[in-house]
Amino acid sequence: MENCIFCKIAEGSVPCKKAYEDERLLAFHDIQPQAPVHILIIPKIHIDSVNRLEEDTAELPAQMIMAAKKLAKEYRIEHTGYRLVINTGKDGGQSVDHLHMHLLGGRSLGWPPG
Amino acid sequence: MENCIFCKIAEGSVPCKKAYEDERLLAFHDIQPQAPVHILIIPKIHIDSVNRLEEDTAELPAQMIMAAKKLAKEYRIEHTGYRLVINTGKDGGQSVDHLHMHLLGGRSLGWPPG
Repeated sequence: MENCIFCKIAEGSVPCKKAYEDERLLAFHDIQPQAPVHILIIPKIHIDSVNRLEEDTAELPAQMIMAAKKLAKEYRIEHTGYRLVINTGKDGGQSVDHLHMHLLGGRSLGWPPG
Repeated sequence: MENCIFCKIAEGSVPCKKAYEDERLLAFHDIQPQAPVHILIIPKIHIDSVNRLEEDTAELPAQMIMAAKKLAKEYRIEHTGYRLVINTGKDGGQSVDHLHMHLLGGRSLGWPPG
């Protein structure tokens, strides 16, 4: 997607503070962190949102969650706790139309979640 | 798990307001809703949290997200937007030690997510 900032980050034409990478996924630190640990996990391929996941891409969120689990361990929030958030659409607060999961930890996260 | 309230809901010995069910998953309305639509999606088998997901259970979150997508459509929040949240541990605000995903929608969800 030509004008997608996360596609540009995934292809390397826009820099990021990388936290994790494999063949399918990239994870990087949020530029407006809302917690001591705030990492975004994205698929490298462009998918607008959860609404666009189909059978052939449904395994991506599973890979994203397993990456989040690894990152939680690496950033030592595995035992203190963390929150995973995926926003879809306007009410959800989705700010970039490229599927992404927020991993937040390092502080006590309140309820409701927004 | 003998004392797990979500296992009891999954096996039917504790009632719930059911929103979705299939072989592996159950979804029901949160008893303390934080938004006009607030549904919990759980695997029927007991898994404590994201920290306990392994290769053989990693497909469960993908199935949970696809169920959330279906429910968002059914509850007419597909286009207005929604937020998916998975809490792990104390800082994450996990209140029941049985993996569950919150689906929230029907109002504008603020940022940060807790």
